[in-house]
Order: sequence, then structure tokens, then C-alpha cells
Amino acid sequence: MYAFLPLGLRVLNKLIAVVDTEMEKIGAQKLLLPALTSTQLWRKSNRFNDNINEFFKLRDRSQREYILSPTYEEAICSVVSSVGSLSPRMFPLRLYQISNKWRDEIKPKLGFLRSREFIMKDLYTFDIDLDRAKETYALVCETYENIFKKIGITYIKAIGNPGTIGGSMSHEYHYISSIGEDNVYVCLSCQYRINKVMCKESQCPECGSVLEQNRTAEVGHTFLLDTKYTIPLEVTLRINEKVKPLVMGCYGLGLSRIFTVMTELLSTKEELRWPKNLAPYTVCIIPPKAGSKEESALQYVKDIIEVLTPLNTDIILDDRTHLSIGNRLMHARVTGFPYVIIIGKSAIQSPPLIEIHDINSSTNCQIPLDDISSYFNKEGIKI
Amino acid sequence: MYAFLPLGLRVLNKLIAVVDTEMEKIGAQKLLLPALTSTQLWRKSNRFNDNINEFFKLRDRSQREYILSPTYEEAICSVVSSVGSLSPRMFPLRLYQISNKWRDEIKPKLGFLRSREFIMKDLYTFDIDLDRAKETYALVCETYENIFKKIGITYIKAIGNPGTIGGSMSHEYHYISSIGEDNVYVCLSCQYRINKVMCKESQCPECGSVLEQNRTAEVGHTFLLDTKYTIPLEVTLRINEKVKPLVMGCYGLGLSRIFTVMTELLSTKEELRWPKNLAPYTVCIIPPKAGSKEESALQYVKDIIEVLTPLNTDIILDDRTHLSIGNRLMHARVTGFPYVIIIGKSAIQSPPLIEIHDINSSTNCQIPLDDISSYFNKEGIKI
Repeated sequence: MYAFLPLGLRVLNKLIAVVDTEMEKIGAQKLLLPALTSTQLWRKSNRFNDNINEFFKLRDRSQREYILSPTYEEAICSVVSSVGSLSPRMFPLRLYQISNKWRDEIKPKLGFLRSREFIMKDLYTFDIDLDRAKETYALVCETYENIFKKIGITYIKAIGNPGTIGGSMSHEYHYISSIGEDNVYVCLSCQYRINKVMCKESQCPECGSVLEQNRTAEVGHTFLLDTKYTIPLEVTLRINEKVKPLVMGCYGLGLSRIFTVMTELLSTKEELRWPKNLAPYTVCIIPPKAGSKEESALQYVKDIIEVLTPLNTDIILDDRTHLSIGNRLMHARVTGFPYVIIIGKSAIQSPPLIEIHDINSSTNCQIPLDDISSYFNKEGIKI
Repeated sequence: MYAFLPLGLRVLNKLIAVVDTEMEKIGAQKLLLPALTSTQLWRKSNRFNDNINEFFKLRDRSQREYILSPTYEEAICSVVSSVGSLSPRMFPLRLYQISNKWRDEIKPKLGFLRSREFIMKDLYTFDIDLDRAKETYALVCETYENIFKKIGITYIKAIGNPGTIGGSMSHEYHYISSIGEDNVYVCLSCQYRINKVMCKESQCPECGSVLEQNRTAEVGHTFLLDTKYTIPLEVTLRINEKVKPLVMGCYGLGLSRIFTVMTELLSTKEELRWPKNLAPYTVCIIPPKAGSKEESALQYVKDIIEVLTPLNTDIILDDRTHLSIGNRLMHARVTGFPYVIIIGKSAIQSPPLIEIHDINSSTNCQIPLDDISSYFNKEGIKI
């Protein structure tokens, strides 16, 4: 189990902001379910079994049994059904949460890649019939494409393994990475992609071409669940005096896993790197060392902050001026600030020049103070 | 255990935004600790005892024992001490989180007033000596005043009961409410206020005047912990080659309890009411009923939204136009939107008038469409 320290939490929160924006676009409403779910509910959906070791189980003082939720299908069904039979006007109903989940993994691995406590976004959708549920499914898949494009890491969408969640259709989103624990077959000729565990053939079933195996980390999963949960948990619609089960979908995004894999993929041995829009701070300013020749250039810090603020760029000022510029630049690299502005020797030349390091592309340049705004406008930084 | 549904979660998130803003002002950095804490850590601080029934305990597949954290002093000390002995330059160190906590209460009461799973803001501070820790303590108390003023509900700050948290000084923040479970003595002459359990006298120990007993709900608590946790958990400072324990403070705010008590205090039998800046949406717009005479006034919705948007007012449009205006107004009242704008019969007069209900003050008025902006500017709504 791991803590998010302040800089890491900033990254997570920026990722959450991306997800929230896209969820709002499809009318999904955010809620927050309790972390503990009664095993009674899980017995109703037939997913509870005393022999499952992945559950963190506990009993309260009255010996009622709970699990620390590894997923929330039962909990959300319980909330929705508690309203009673719903009217057709209330659909589509799209509810999501961003919360902890727990699994007592036999082999936790690499921090949040496979941790026993982790953070996911879970969207649960309810529609009045299968056709509309399929429309919702297609819409959420589009939303996932938008989210993954905003994160900016190359991903694969593959036919998924329904696993213990179940349902009639499922897709997975993977990052290609040797630290991952999945394998995805990618057809070299057509658009066919499938989780290896779902594919018993060595050739593409669509076009007959060669399937290339990729080591991946699964970071998202969509399921068209149909009525698998809504029948046993009585999540129903009342239409023309008849009561019928709703058609459900669920859509997970492993936020703490995305957090881990994206930096694993981007970083080098010397530098922690983040997608520029998700870094803990976009710009790190390093002012001159105290007592140095260039200390008079300290005044430019204010000017730089003034220029950057309206660009909506978040800034961290490394004011540990007892440390050398080189030392602080090294810290900025290992922490993962994508842009480092150094007020160094050239800042006391005429005209004063400042140094900008673009960490993710390993480039740097010296520019006049007045050009900072146009530099960042060109880079198109947005947080 | 309770869920936050979408409108309730919006209220909670606005409350969190108030807290985050004030925490940032005092340089407190946000982090997120794991929910499960090893009982090993709690044994080190001597707070674990197998007979404590308030803990939700569990064992993992290797029989290691954890509790679902009822509080996080041990966890934060473990994180800070894991860095090693810190340098004096790193202080003051102020870390906070907003997270779930769990207590297996023998008598849960009234939703989030006393729930077994609840949400708190916890700030943990570390200083190099007691004098500086006292400065931090005074600063955080000021911050708490700011937060409570922004929420806007009358509160009492009283000398607190250190309870199982301990420490050398403690204050509590209470809302006066009959649903509460605490009692605070308030001196009718001087500024003396104290939790009843801490006071064995019937007269003010400061001035001898009468103490008035108030039924209250505790919503915040500050503790100067001194070295109670930093010694056993080895949270240390290295200064002049000597290692010494840091001086710690902890500062809780019961966010889910504030959520409950504030609406209990403001609401009436007919209306759910929230502080205007914390309501799920500030303004609810109710357009004409479909098929009604005034349906032509539907066009004004767009104009109203255009006027309100730059005011930074969040708006919900009740587009269930199959329902009468009266019916939707009743829904707005019971849901707790502080301003309701009705586009009704007067909207088809010349000049068109719209109706604005100020729910929290039980007043309403009709104003020309063009005056909406000045109405809300006068009200000074800010979210």
C-alpha cells in the first residue's frame, strides 16, 4: 500500500481533472460510494465466496461481514435500486466515482502498477434496453479515446477478457510496456487487437495475417454487462405498468496504474518525466545562487511569474538559493518538471538572457526575457 | 455507511475547495495516505489494544494485521520518518489529507453526523521546537476561523478534550445544535468556553460568572501533540550533528459532519437549505411548462445563462418541462438551490419580467430580464 506524496498527488489530480471533464461531456454524474460493501449484497449477485483470497474481509462489532470493495457493481446497483423502479424519462443514467479499491494481491508489483490499494475511476451506466446500452457503450469508448489522447501515451484498444466482471461485450485499453503483466495480439494488417487470453489462434481471425504479441499493462476496461447485476439486485424500470431490469454497463480506468505506467514509459535513467499537461508543476524557476555574481538578476523572478501566470501554467520556484543552480537543475530533472527556467550567468548580460530547458525533449535554449511568453505560447502549454 | 449522491458530492467538493484554499495559504501540502494502517505502527505508538472495539480490523492473506484507519497520526509519522532525519531548512512542514476514516461506532447516528465511515481533513504539522510548534498552532487556529467564517455558520471555539489523541493543548470547534452529542460551557461574561467533560466547576474559572451549557456537535479539533508520536515513531530532525524528535500538531475538520450539521441548522420542514456558497448549484432555472401559454418565453433561458455565466455562478436548468412550474419550484426547494429563477406568466408581459426566489431568506421578487446581472452582483454570489 502506497501514499501519494504532494507532488504525486498533483499529478493524480490533474489526471482526475481530465477524466472529470470528459465524464461531464457525456452527462455522467460523480458520486462517492462507501468503501465497505456488505457481503450480503455480493452474495445476491453470486460473486461472494468464502474461498476468494483476493478480498479484504472484516466483521463489525455485530459480526456483520463486509469487504473492502474490490469493485462497486453491487454497491451502485444497491443505490440505484433503493430509489425504486425508475421512470423511462430518467435515462440514460450515468454515474461514476473516483475512489479507492482494494485487492489482497498474491503478488503486488512495482508500486501502483499492482498495489493492494489502488485508485480507479468507475463509470456505471443504466439504459432502458440493450440497443440504448450499446449506444452508451460506443459513446463511452469515444470518451475513453479522448481521455487517452489527452494523456498522450500510445495505447491499444483490444477485445477484452470479461473475467469475473462478466457481461456480453468487453474491451480493454493497454499501454505497451515491458513492466506490464498482460499480452495483447495486434494484427499487422487489419485493426484486430485482442487480449492473448481470449485468442486461441496464432493468425488473425479477421484477415488471416500474422498476430504480433505485445507485452502490455491494462489501464482501462469497458464492459457491457447487460442484466447480469440488475436482475439479481433488482435495478428496474417501470414502463407501461410493467417492471423490467435495466441494462447496465461498467467502465473502469486504473488511475493509479496510469500514473505509474506513464512515467515508467516516459522517464530515462536520469530524469523522471511526465506528460507535460500532467506534471506536478509545468515550470520550475531556478533563481541565482545566493552570494553569486548573478544574484542581481533575482529581480527577474517576479517578471517571469507575471508573464507565466496568465498562460495558466503552474509554476514552482526553487528558492533553495543556498544550493547551486546545477544542483537544483538536477533536482528538477529527477522530480519531473517539464520546463526549467534558469536565471543564471547570461541573465546579467545585456540584454539579459534566461535559459529554458525542455526536459522531455532534452533540449535547451537561451532567450531574451521578453520572449518567454511567446516561447510558451508556441509550446501550447495548458494545464 | 453512506453514499454521497451527485448533488451532495457537489456540496462536499465546494467545502473541500474552501479548505484547500485556506490550507494552501499556510503552505500546507496535500497528500494521500493509504486507508489501511498496519497495527504494528499502532503498537509502536502504544495506541493499539486488541480490546478496542472501535477499530475495523482485518488480516491479509499472510495474517498481517491492519486497521481501517480511524485517524492517521501513525501513518503520517511513518511517511515522514521514512525520509530519515530532516534538515532544519525543511521546516515548518505542514502536510494534510482529505480522506475517509472509519470507526466501528456502537451508536451511529443521523447519517454523517456519526457514521462508521466518514470524511475528514487532517493536517499534520512538524516543527523544530515547541515554540515554533505553538506558532504553527496559533496560525492554524486563525486558518480555522477563516474556514468557519467562509462556511458562515455560527461556531464556538472551546478548550478541548484531548481524548485518545493526547497532547499538551487542544481546542474544539462546535456548532450549536440539538442534534449534537457534546456539551460546551460558554461563560456569559468573558471569552471562556470549554467542553463540559473538561470542566468540573459550575462557574467560570476565569471570571466567576455563570456558565451556560450549550448542546453542540463537534466539527473540528486541534491538538498540540508535542513529541507524543514523534518519539516512539522516530520522526526526527538532525541539527548540529544531533538528532532530536520533531514537535507535532494535528488538526482535524469533520467534513462529512459539517455537511450534515450545516444543513440541519439551516433547513426548514419544507426546504433543504445550504450556505449559498456551498449549495449543490447556486441557481436553478425553471423554464415554462411545455404547451403552456408562456412557452414562447423559453428563449430567455439562453439569455439568463449568458448573463449568469461570467458571474461564476453555477446553474442547473430544470428542463423537465412536462412538469408544472409549481411542481418544479417545490423540487428546487426540497433539493436546496438557494436561488430559483422562474420564467413564468410575467415573462410574456411587456417588458418581460422573471421571478427570482431567494430561498434561504424566503423572499421573492419580479425583475426585468435586463436586471438579473445587477441582482446577482448585489447579492455578491461567489462559488
